[in-house]
Amino acid sequence: MADTLDRLVTTIAARRQAEPGSSYVASLFAKGLPKIAQKVGEEAVESVIAAMSGTKKDLTGEAADLIFHLLVLLEASGVPFSDVLAELDRREGVSGLDEKASRTATPASEPAPRPLGAKPASPDDDGPSLSFGSKPDTRPLIRRG
Amino acid sequence: MADTLDRLVTTIAARRQAEPGSSYVASLFAKGLPKIAQKVGEEAVESVIAAMSGTKKDLTGEAADLIFHLLVLLEASGVPFSDVLAELDRREGVSGLDEKASRTATPASEPAPRPLGAKPASPDDDGPSLSFGSKPDTRPLIRRG
Amino acid sequence: MADTLDRLVTTIAARRQAEPGSSYVASLFAKGLPKIAQKVGEEAVESVIAAMSGTKKDLTGEAADLIFHLLVLLEASGVPFSDVLAELDRREGVSGLDEKASRTATPASEPAPRPLGAKPASPDDDGPSLSFGSKPDTRPLIRRG
Amino acid sequence: MADTLDRLVTTIAARRQAEPGSSYVASLFAKGLPKIAQKVGEEAVESVIAAMSGTKKDLTGEAADLIFHLLVLLEASGVPFSDVLAELDRREGVSGLDEKASRTATPASEPAPRPLGAKPASPDDDGPSLSFGSKPDTRPLIRRG
Repeated sequence: MADTLDRLVTTIAARRQAEPGSSYVASLFAKGLPKIAQKVGEEAVESVIAAMSGTKKDLTGEAADLIFHLLVLLEASGVPFSDVLAELDRREGVSGLDEKASRTATPASEPAPRPLGAKPASPDDDGPSLSFGSKPDTRPLIRRG
Repeated sequence: MADTLDRLVTTIAARRQAEPGSSYVASLFAKGLPKIAQKVGEEAVESVIAAMSGTKKDLTGEAADLIFHLLVLLEASGVPFSDVLAELDRREGVSGLDEKASRTATPASEPAPRPLGAKPASPDDDGPSLSFGSKPDTRPLIRRG
Repeated sequence: MADTLDRLVTTIAARRQAEPGSSYVASLFAKGLPKIAQKVGEEAVESVIAAMSGTKKDLTGEAADLIFHLLVLLEASGVPFSDVLAELDRREGVSGLDEKASRTATPASEPAPRPLGAKPASPDDDGPSLSFGSKPDTRPLIRRG
Repeated sequence: MADTLDRLVTTIAARRQAEPGSSYVASLFAKGLPKIAQKVGEEAVESVIAAMSGTKKDLTGEAADLIFHLLVLLEASGVPFSDVLAELDRREGVSGLDEKASRTATPASEPAPRPLGAKPASPDDDGPSLSFGSKPDTRPLIRRG
């Protein structure tokens, strides 16, 4: 599993500098960040549609497209894919800790990393005195105590 | 790299059956496929916005969210993540072959797997006699001789 | 303003039955609901990108595309556009009422229609005993007295 | 039909300057363009999901949300909604002309406005010598000759 994505990340970085006419990756970089971001959004839409109404083969292909273009977007943005994996590891670790904490019913005494899927607290999203426009969306992986 | 996603895939499959109140993953499965697909779409939008106007840290977090929810969508749809990686491998292989083929200027004599990023030929997308509504979008990784 | 969208709704309904080769609208209907929904998602992504990095002219064009394809989606789904406008009217009315209510500090004594932008209460989104996965997102247009 | 959207555009412009705590519209503007654009993307995803798996009532509500947030995005971007309607009128006119032209089999002798749904020719999308990454997507409403 690691091999595929490792190789892909390397390939994308290598082709980035290629002549746009010789490489799809290079042609994406030549179009610029907005077009690359647009492709990520479009492939996500296609994945959604495939999941809702397509075959498993359709979804397999669209998910591959989505991951591919996401890796291109990360490269274009200077974000190492390893940082994204580290973030996933960190949340997985948090959720493991949370799970243990929940069994011992001991609340964390200091700010913990955000668990998998949870959103950061943010003043513009969930100020304490405003209820509209808020998306608290606090999603620990486990129920507290 | 492999370890993180391997573990995550395993964790998601394991928590799928958990009590929805005890796990974010289980709560997603309890909501059903449409809500899971919706989350993938929304996280992709957030990734797009982060890439266009956020920090690298923002994009790192949103990309992690997108991958996480995509893995949940694959699990919910019965598509092994290994199939998606195999598809990426297959296209990478194709693009390597294409690259070689382009150097020797020998056109492929039989239908080849779709290269990275390329869309399948499809009658409803690009019928030969209709130019409207078509999105040929044939994107081999290399320029044909 | 009314004229444009009224005419467009009528045109879309009329061309729905046309021969797919003779009309873009008919070709969309021939492709089916998933492809039409996909177009709405893609045009929204393009509108987002245009707003973030394009010119006003870009956004004008993408917003026109988005509205056009949304009208096609509504027609394909059997939802009259007038129902969508009625829903917008209803929320506008609610928010007007809410505004007045807030000035007199009199809480509504019965369930009121959802104000503009507000999400419906839904067990899977914001159950009272679960905090994860929740997106209460209750967004009245005015602050309650 | 005109009345609803006219009023809504006026309301949005009026509330833009309100205190964020007193108006959902004002709270959106306070969050800034990226958050507004994100809402458009998210509401489009929800419309897609509603069309694929929800009720007509669901789609009615999501389409209302999408239009509402699109109008906010236009206001935030300084694009008058009337410009978007004018663009739709222009394309409708084009497609009418195209339709007539197709009956007389007289090709247009000069560059015509883009018909409904058609994409602009763009060097980065569909250069004549590159076939990859291209999305010609030329979609006149009628078949030529």
